[in-house]
Order: sequence, then C-alpha cells, then structure tokens
Amino acid sequence: MAATTKLDYAKPPPPLKDELDIVIPTIRNLEFLEMWRPFFEPYHLIIVQDGDPTKTIKVPDGFDYDLYNRNDIKKLLGPRASCISFKDSACRCFGYMVSKKKYIFTIDDDCLVAKDPSGKAINALEQHIKNLLCPSTPFFFNTLYDPFADGADFVRGYPFSLRDGVPTAVSHGLWLNIPDYDAPTQLVKPLERNQRYVDAVLTIPKGTLFPMCGMNLAFDRELIGPAMYFGLMGDGQPIGRYDDMWAGWCIKVICDHLGLGVKTGLPYIWHSKASNPFVNLRKEYKGIFWQEEIIPFFQSVSLPKDCTSVQKCYIELSKQVKEKLSKVDPYFDKLASAMVTWIEAWEEINPPTSASSKLSNGTAK
Amino acid sequence: MAATTKLDYAKPPPPLKDELDIVIPTIRNLEFLEMWRPFFEPYHLIIVQDGDPTKTIKVPDGFDYDLYNRNDIKKLLGPRASCISFKDSACRCFGYMVSKKKYIFTIDDDCLVAKDPSGKAINALEQHIKNLLCPSTPFFFNTLYDPFADGADFVRGYPFSLRDGVPTAVSHGLWLNIPDYDAPTQLVKPLERNQRYVDAVLTIPKGTLFPMCGMNLAFDRELIGPAMYFGLMGDGQPIGRYDDMWAGWCIKVICDHLGLGVKTGLPYIWHSKASNPFVNLRKEYKGIFWQEEIIPFFQSVSLPKDCTSVQKCYIELSKQVKEKLSKVDPYFDKLASAMVTWIEAWEEINPPTSASSKLSNGTAK
Repeated sequence: MAATTKLDYAKPPPPLKDELDIVIPTIRNLEFLEMWRPFFEPYHLIIVQDGDPTKTIKVPDGFDYDLYNRNDIKKLLGPRASCISFKDSACRCFGYMVSKKKYIFTIDDDCLVAKDPSGKAINALEQHIKNLLCPSTPFFFNTLYDPFADGADFVRGYPFSLRDGVPTAVSHGLWLNIPDYDAPTQLVKPLERNQRYVDAVLTIPKGTLFPMCGMNLAFDRELIGPAMYFGLMGDGQPIGRYDDMWAGWCIKVICDHLGLGVKTGLPYIWHSKASNPFVNLRKEYKGIFWQEEIIPFFQSVSLPKDCTSVQKCYIELSKQVKEKLSKVDPYFDKLASAMVTWIEAWEEINPPTSASSKLSNGTAK
Repeated sequence: MAATTKLDYAKPPPPLKDELDIVIPTIRNLEFLEMWRPFFEPYHLIIVQDGDPTKTIKVPDGFDYDLYNRNDIKKLLGPRASCISFKDSACRCFGYMVSKKKYIFTIDDDCLVAKDPSGKAINALEQHIKNLLCPSTPFFFNTLYDPFADGADFVRGYPFSLRDGVPTAVSHGLWLNIPDYDAPTQLVKPLERNQRYVDAVLTIPKGTLFPMCGMNLAFDRELIGPAMYFGLMGDGQPIGRYDDMWAGWCIKVICDHLGLGVKTGLPYIWHSKASNPFVNLRKEYKGIFWQEEIIPFFQSVSLPKDCTSVQKCYIELSKQVKEKLSKVDPYFDKLASAMVTWIEAWEEINPPTSASSKLSNGTAK
C-alpha cells in the first residue's frame, strides 16, 4: 500500500554514497563538473574517455574517479573490446560493466544543473535515487502520476492488489533548454527550446515502448545492467545516435518480461549545447528508416518463460534480432553477435555469484 | 507530422460553440455556474436533474439550457429508462444520449475554476477542446508529453510513421484541491489536498487501462458516445461511485480496438468538496472487491474484427460481460442487459444516418 512503501520526500533520501557510480563518456576536459560539485562530489565517477587515448582529460580537483581510455578497454576486454563503440558516446556502457556498484547514474558533459520553477537548483541525482527506490506501477495508469510522490496517492478505481507496485529498474530524466530532437526536427525548429517544467514522474506502462535518451539516466545495475548495452555506433558503423534508443527498446521489453518498472519525468537537467544537425542527419539517416521496422519488431518480441535472468533474456533477444532484423540490414547480424560478446564480457568482468545472475545453470561460458 | 497537424495554442481555439454541449448532473441549485460564466455562457447546457423530480433546480440567468428530470427521462425512453441510474450522478449519461452535438463536456457541480501557477483562471473547456482537436499518440510514448503542445514536438527516436497520430476521442481532466480518492484512502488521508500542477497532457498508451473520473471530462460523441454509458448505480443497485470507472474501462478497450486516442492531464478544475468517506465506503464496498476481477477481464478483452462501430463493439462487450463477469455477481448479468438497453435507447434517440453508425447492416432494431 502507498502508505507503507512511500518514501518521505521531505527527508533527504538515502544518498547511496557507496552504492552508486556516476558514468560520464567524454572527449574533453570536465569543467562541467564544477557546477555539479555539491551534488556529485561524494560519489565515485567512472569516466570513459572516447577517441584518442593519448589525449589528457582534465578532471577538476576533489572528485574521486577512475578514467578508462580505449587502451584500458582493450586491456581489460581483449578481443571482446570489439563490442564497445569507438568515437561515439555509446562507449559509456563500458562504465556500466566495470562498475562494482548497485546503481548507475550517467550524464553527458554538456548537461548542466537546471533550476525548478521556484529558482532552486535541481539535484538530479537525488531525484533519480528517489525514483529508483520507489516502486513502479506498470500494470495500470495512475492519473495523478507517481502515487509515491509527496502529496499524491493512488486515485479512486486503482486496484488495491496492484498498489505494492514492482521494483524500479530504470529512471529516465528529461532536459530543459535544448530538447532531444532528431536531425530533421532540429533542422526544422532550430530555435525551439524546452521551457515546460512538468512536475511529474510516471511509470511507462507495460507493453509500451519509449525513446530512451542516455543524457540523464539512472538504473539499477543488479536488476537490469546486462541489458544496458549501447550497441555498435560511431567509428566503422553505419549508424550513430541510436545507442540509447537501442538500449531503451531492449531494457523495456526485458523489464516488461521480468516484471520490473521504468520511470520517466523528473529530474530535469539543463542541456546546454545543440549538436550539429547536419552531422546528426548523417549519423541518423539509416536509423530513421530502420526504426520503422525495429520498433514493430520490439513491440512483438516475446521472451520464453525460462528466460528468468537479464542475461538469458538478452541472449534470447540477440537470437531474435539475428533472425528477424538481419533482413533489414547486415548490420543487425553484426549487432546481434556484439550483443552476445557484450554478455560474455559482462560475465567475465562480473562473475556470476548467484543462480539468478548465471547465464544458464552455471555451465555457460 | 507535428508541424502540419499542430494547433497554434497562442490563438484562441475554435470555440465549437454550436458543436458542444455541457452536461451537468445535479440535485441542487447551480450557483457554481456563476464562476464559470465567462467560459460556459456561450454554450448550451444539458442539466440532468437527479432524484426528486418535483424539486426545482435554479439555474443562474443568462445560461441557455435544457433540464431533464426523472419524469422527462421516463417520457422519452419509456421502459428503456431502466438503464438510466436514479439517485446517482451516473444519470448524466442520459445527457450524452439526448445531445445533438458532436462534443460533450461534463462537469460536477462542486467543481470550480482552478488557477494555474501564474494565478490565471483556467478555462477548462478551452483546454479540453484543444485536447480533442489534436491527435493522440497511443502507439509509442513521447517523453516530452503532448508533441502537439506549444514548444514541444516528438523527440529523437519517435518513429516518423506514427507522428500523424490518431483522432482523439476522450479528454480526461484532473482536479486540484480535493483529489479523487476512494473511501479507504479518504479515511486514511482526510487532509490530503492535491497541490501539484502538472503542466502536461498525455495519451494513455494502447493496451493500458486507467481510472476515468467523470468530474471533468470531455469526449467526441460521434467517435465514442455510445460507449459512454455510466452503468447501473445508486438507487436499487448494490454499488455506487463506479459509474465513471465502468465507462472508462469500456471506452478504453473500444478506443484501443478502433484506433482512437484517450488523453489525460490538463485541464485542472478546483474540486471544492470532499464527499463523505463513510457514505462512499458503503457505495464502493463491493466495487473494491469486484474491480480485482473486472480489471483483468477488461485487460484481456478482445473484440473481433467485424466490430467496426462503437455500437457493435459495445454490444459485443455486453456479451462478454454477461459471459465472464456474471460469475462474480448476478449484478453483472443485469448490467450486461442494461448495456444492450442503453444501445437500443441510443439508437432510438439517435437514429443511424450512415452505415458506420448502424448497429448491424442496417437491419438492427
């Protein structure tokens, strides 16, 4: 019931200081962290340096971090490093793999601290933690949004048997200022800025897909980590800017299958820079066509009952991708193989410790 | 595409003056209309007087209205008047039936004009009209909410083939101040007030049910009217306060089947009075148990392809209710019969004029 599972939003939430890593993919010095200092400094950062590994990334003093460049990735993963994208922020998922924490928050280096309508700086991480620690309600829609938020509850007609909710695996945050538009929309509306602060968190219903953006995202690594693979993008690949979309489709069908929740809404960050729409169009070009077939594929994916772990679900998904999407483009054959490599690498870096996290009956790999 | 179907929210929307009726069920004088005068006065009102027909309901001067009491309902419907609830606001659906307009807005007489965060009075009707005239997007979730709202659009990753959306059949508005809680929640949280103004309109995804509240609701009568039956409640019935819930479950599965949209969110009204939780508990008591079986029933309803009109869908639904829910309680047998009576009465008052609105091949009734 809401009364018993609700967090008291008036008190500071559990900070999860030793249970959460902040993952940042970057090619530049991280001055943007100065603005986040009051909120991020207590946490450990995992910086994934994209591109030229000889370049030095400056991190402001006082932050506790590990930095991995391409050489580190190769050293750790060997030939399996092929599943980690190069020259694309999709490389961030390497940070999810090497983290030893239960929770991940990932943010882009052009995302600054936003203000709420009262002018108060928004601690995005704190809101993500609230979202992750409160249950989700994917089976029935609550018209007053998050029933666990302060001053809210389940409305009349909400079945009591569903009020316990399910564990939340993913918290998807939003962006004020530069909206996350595709290249065609950027080209058509170069001056559009998101100024609408929507004071809501909601569970994306079971069976519904959404466009997951990786700019401002948190998740429970133990619940869904192995499915948070950002695919093959960037250097040597025919596509970019679909890394987070790919992960979003995968995690959603797996969360639906495993009875886990995905939330979207608060917190907002301030997205400071619009990326170049011409460059984006080149990266997205094929994806704009492909998504018309990929999305119906994911809408119809069905995972068998014996897929009881994220890893098993993900391997099964890779088979279905190979079988159903390879006809769209040979790229999906390569991607399906990379999905398997990713799981192999994940299991190598994170050796199974319990039956539930094993690939299959302890004999896999 | 958003650019072509978008309304300009800066301009006043088409007022639909001659295409919309406001339906108000009441047992008391309608002083509350004074506060709504600037917004409602141009429109025609249909007042459905509940309870004692000898009582006189005072309507403030200057409003254009028709008032129907129980005697009028009996005169118009004859024995079929049995499908219209007595001593319950469910009687409002009689107003939907006798309207000759394309759109309906229905509001309770304890709902006053709310203010937005800037202090401006909210013209709820104007927002409902915007919602109804803009497409819905039930097949994929847009993380920036209504893509047709001013300053918003479809985000990166939203399939272009789905951006036209589908016609909107229902606009479900919300309530500041007294939230629409069930009796147990009212009893547990007597002082809770909804103070969260969420500046969003969103489409409830296909396949997801929601608790539809009848306090502040608008719909396209031509698209969904015959399914907006508020059931058998109140006098002589074992249940109350589930009239709008029943209609909400029915309209949602039918909208999903026919490819129509249901929106929720803005506009807010100011809900001034909490109803008595003890009285409510008595009314809701059975519903709290029954909804645990009714909702799974509606979640699994499948309508055959030849159900191409709302009437056909509704008759088919009545059969499934009789078949699947009568075992829950004999009440559902009676309700299923009343659903058929409702459609017969609807067709009598609104004789079919086109093939699409006929019950079956022009031979029905």
